[in-house]
Amino acid sequence: MISAETRGVFAIAPTPFLPSGALDMASLGRMTERYRDCGVDGLTILGIMGEAQKLEPEESLAVVREVIAHAQGLPVVVGISAPGFAAMKRLSAAAMEMGAAGVMMTPPAAMRSDDQIAGWFSGAVAQIGGDVPFVLQDHPTATGVVMSNAVIRRVVDENPSCVMLKHEDWPGLEKISAIRRWQAEGEMRALSILCGNGALFLDMEMARGADGAMTGYAFPEMLRRVVDLSVSDRDAAQDIYDAHLPLLRYEHQPGVGLAVRKHILARRGFIAHGDLRAPGAGPSEATRAEIDYLLARLAARDPGCGL
Amino acid sequence: MISAETRGVFAIAPTPFLPSGALDMASLGRMTERYRDCGVDGLTILGIMGEAQKLEPEESLAVVREVIAHAQGLPVVVGISAPGFAAMKRLSAAAMEMGAAGVMMTPPAAMRSDDQIAGWFSGAVAQIGGDVPFVLQDHPTATGVVMSNAVIRRVVDENPSCVMLKHEDWPGLEKISAIRRWQAEGEMRALSILCGNGALFLDMEMARGADGAMTGYAFPEMLRRVVDLSVSDRDAAQDIYDAHLPLLRYEHQPGVGLAVRKHILARRGFIAHGDLRAPGAGPSEATRAEIDYLLARLAARDPGCGL
Amino acid sequence: MISAETRGVFAIAPTPFLPSGALDMASLGRMTERYRDCGVDGLTILGIMGEAQKLEPEESLAVVREVIAHAQGLPVVVGISAPGFAAMKRLSAAAMEMGAAGVMMTPPAAMRSDDQIAGWFSGAVAQIGGDVPFVLQDHPTATGVVMSNAVIRRVVDENPSCVMLKHEDWPGLEKISAIRRWQAEGEMRALSILCGNGALFLDMEMARGADGAMTGYAFPEMLRRVVDLSVSDRDAAQDIYDAHLPLLRYEHQPGVGLAVRKHILARRGFIAHGDLRAPGAGPSEATRAEIDYLLARLAARDPGCGL
Amino acid sequence: MISAETRGVFAIAPTPFLPSGALDMASLGRMTERYRDCGVDGLTILGIMGEAQKLEPEESLAVVREVIAHAQGLPVVVGISAPGFAAMKRLSAAAMEMGAAGVMMTPPAAMRSDDQIAGWFSGAVAQIGGDVPFVLQDHPTATGVVMSNAVIRRVVDENPSCVMLKHEDWPGLEKISAIRRWQAEGEMRALSILCGNGALFLDMEMARGADGAMTGYAFPEMLRRVVDLSVSDRDAAQDIYDAHLPLLRYEHQPGVGLAVRKHILARRGFIAHGDLRAPGAGPSEATRAEIDYLLARLAARDPGCGL
Repeated sequence: MISAETRGVFAIAPTPFLPSGALDMASLGRMTERYRDCGVDGLTILGIMGEAQKLEPEESLAVVREVIAHAQGLPVVVGISAPGFAAMKRLSAAAMEMGAAGVMMTPPAAMRSDDQIAGWFSGAVAQIGGDVPFVLQDHPTATGVVMSNAVIRRVVDENPSCVMLKHEDWPGLEKISAIRRWQAEGEMRALSILCGNGALFLDMEMARGADGAMTGYAFPEMLRRVVDLSVSDRDAAQDIYDAHLPLLRYEHQPGVGLAVRKHILARRGFIAHGDLRAPGAGPSEATRAEIDYLLARLAARDPGCGL
Repeated sequence: MISAETRGVFAIAPTPFLPSGALDMASLGRMTERYRDCGVDGLTILGIMGEAQKLEPEESLAVVREVIAHAQGLPVVVGISAPGFAAMKRLSAAAMEMGAAGVMMTPPAAMRSDDQIAGWFSGAVAQIGGDVPFVLQDHPTATGVVMSNAVIRRVVDENPSCVMLKHEDWPGLEKISAIRRWQAEGEMRALSILCGNGALFLDMEMARGADGAMTGYAFPEMLRRVVDLSVSDRDAAQDIYDAHLPLLRYEHQPGVGLAVRKHILARRGFIAHGDLRAPGAGPSEATRAEIDYLLARLAARDPGCGL
Repeated sequence: MISAETRGVFAIAPTPFLPSGALDMASLGRMTERYRDCGVDGLTILGIMGEAQKLEPEESLAVVREVIAHAQGLPVVVGISAPGFAAMKRLSAAAMEMGAAGVMMTPPAAMRSDDQIAGWFSGAVAQIGGDVPFVLQDHPTATGVVMSNAVIRRVVDENPSCVMLKHEDWPGLEKISAIRRWQAEGEMRALSILCGNGALFLDMEMARGADGAMTGYAFPEMLRRVVDLSVSDRDAAQDIYDAHLPLLRYEHQPGVGLAVRKHILARRGFIAHGDLRAPGAGPSEATRAEIDYLLARLAARDPGCGL
Repeated sequence: MISAETRGVFAIAPTPFLPSGALDMASLGRMTERYRDCGVDGLTILGIMGEAQKLEPEESLAVVREVIAHAQGLPVVVGISAPGFAAMKRLSAAAMEMGAAGVMMTPPAAMRSDDQIAGWFSGAVAQIGGDVPFVLQDHPTATGVVMSNAVIRRVVDENPSCVMLKHEDWPGLEKISAIRRWQAEGEMRALSILCGNGALFLDMEMARGADGAMTGYAFPEMLRRVVDLSVSDRDAAQDIYDAHLPLLRYEHQPGVGLAVRKHILARRGFIAHGDLRAPGAGPSEATRAEIDYLLARLAARDPGCGL
């Protein structure tokens, strides 16, 4: 089970598809093993990167079952966000039953005011149960939902089962500082903060007090090293981070970014095919050439990157 | 099957739920019969008003099956919009197999430019098949997708299976006029235009050349009479319409409106309970009193309203 | 000066332009007199309906000067919303110096969380001065800024100079009820609530406890009568209101609505020309015919309407 | 005058303010000279980065006058976007009269469909005159206006005075490729493409066929070298680019980024104070320390950076 003390690197895993658009069951196991080999502390599935919105409920369950089966005890967090609470309740219950370590959720786009956001989380927890540890995903660029520091504290206060913040506000560095300050002053209870947003600010986020990374960058090995080194040797961590930044930034393109990421993961053998489920295009010729160029430079600059 | 010649009144039907949140199967049949008794020309299910987003796939199929079973030949249009094409394809195929008269779809919120919108429809049609007649739903206030007159013409041009426009742009009167002008000039093929938007402009829309209504106002009898009279006796149609406008406008409140509508439909015996599936609140005490007040006035002003 | 005790009808006045796009100074005086003749309790200028965004600063000042000069003591509220505080401060100071009764403001579209909204108002008040009574405009359909009941209470608490709410949330009836409940329970201080949104819910808003109307419907005489009658004779008020609803609803079209309204005001002799400043189109032929039709019906149904 | 053949680096300049919020006239001259010393090919003022929305008209004119006076013949492009055409016309005429090399404009947020966007540009050109060369700014993350490749071609086709695209769509690499392909095939006339978006993809944009950069990164010297080298020695260009990417990415934070940029420019002596005009906060303590850290690393990695 994830908890407020969880630290380290959780890789956000994609959902592999066959070129036909069908779920690629065979890749799920291999992918899970490859992530494990990278030394990650956990996996997160069925997030935005997992194209969860495009899955049928039984497909979601199949993904959860297969990944947990190959995770060999590694904690697996399951994204459950949906327009209706009934679907969230069903997926949460099934996932926890199968051995998930917790669930992740974020409110729908229409939520604006603090009361709406806090009310949505309370309503969701009432449905999935207060015993299911959950990750509050704060991702305004994807959802349009803006959560102030105050409303995050309120959700944490009102829901003891909220154990982790998936931090991907942008810019969000001051948010980490504010939460850590409140905690230091005893005004807010413990909360794990893992950072997303494609790791675009992971270097600074660790320095601000984050507990690690929860993101889908195609080289989890880099996340591992940067998170580990960030406290002991900031410059060394930054050197590794900087070597990856050109590619990482390239992955961080809305829309296209996921195709880039799956293309690299396919090339690295995590998954058999880089295809997105329709609607969703693959990388163009020019994009593939740019990826090649960036990978070649990365290999030269960070020989230990895993290529 | 719906076609470019379809005219009249299609009622948008809600999805009935039990207070527990479960699908109210028993109400589906009764509701369908009541709509039939109102003299509608067809039914549309699983739209926004049908809380389609909150349904599991098997629930959607159950709704389609049950409504068609009680429709006694009345054409039934099924909303299939979803984030992924796979889900749309599956629901479309199943619905047509069960005897649906066509499907309705609208692109997701991210679609902005003409190319994005037209590309989305072409992609969707490639999946569901060009033999399934479909309704293009143009509903910017709900989806944020703005369709120009030009892009509607383009979708119609590019997809012979597009037979109907569910017109609910707001303001959209000039759009109807533009389409009718293009058709009169031979620049656009025939297309049925049924109007939604809670009927808030039905009087004017009919005068501009619409073929009828496709909306969920709780008194389909009014839609029937206004659509029928609008050509032969505009003033008489307007008198009836005006009598309903205070209530109709009250139903047209974003969010709250659906609760108001289901409350009235429950009161009228169409469905057993007015409950929305969570998250979604019912009408407050004050709202119920306001509905009572408006219904009492409506009964006095339009004795033939069906109350 | 407006205060928390202000009640009645404030007409939102348009800004008259010549067909050339120049400010129509001559119409400003006449328009002000016509509003006065309608028996309004005050005027509000330079709001969204006043196309304030399209005015140069010196033009705004000229409008304020001219309207106040003809208002003969009628209180005039001046909209001052702008992207920068400097412009707001300058316009507020100039308007109050000229004899304005207060200012009106609403935060820019980017404001989302409660802290952002409350922070923006505090910052604005620090600039314009705590001695200038201001109207909090709550108009999410125009601005995209969603204000919860709680954040309105907070702005009122934090800013003693906030004396009035221009209520145009939609749906917003429960908001009025919540504020009145808090006030009855002593949890919130007195606050005038005048309703906007084109009067689309004025009947219900008065019943919920609003103090009046602040909107631009082209027949302020109706607002006057409905506000006055709503307490003493709800049915009579509703009868008048219902007679105007078909036209009022027609005016309530985003974008086109303002052209409709100015067209009617020009026809009624309030202003010389109905033109909008570019970019902004006038009513089409068909729209003009629809207005004629609705006005003819209105004259028949409400002979005392002012036509 | 800018033209379709314009190439190189145009620095987007900020507007300097005193801590009091007043325009810092003294800094304008110095800033212009410093940019000139960096070897830029031109300057762009009164863009989003110039806080143009917060300026009074006479302040805008003062900025234009002062910058042109110190530009010593360097072309100066002036941002003129405004809600009303009248203000755009006035600023454009005044700027061109003072010797500006062209204007830049982008439609307001409400523009969605291709027809709306193209219509807005045609309307604007009708006002400012077809003899004023203009830059089409395509910046969806700031404005919400999404321009397809097709609509850009249409605006270029319909307006001969459109000579340049300020490319800052994100992701937008395929857009550059599409335009260059159309031009190679003779389907689109010549057009200068300068890239913005804080240079976050400048390396790839140059490889796709862009003509240079038009952005506000605090080290225009880097832009100069990368643009110059990108054709002759891609790897050398990329090495320089990569050295700046950690800082460049740090500047690319919505909202906070401008404060970071002005802070660095103040430190570099371009402007006297880094202050933003209210509302707008400066960098926190922690942010300043992060900037120091990134600048120290940059100086070590790119000794010729200009520090």
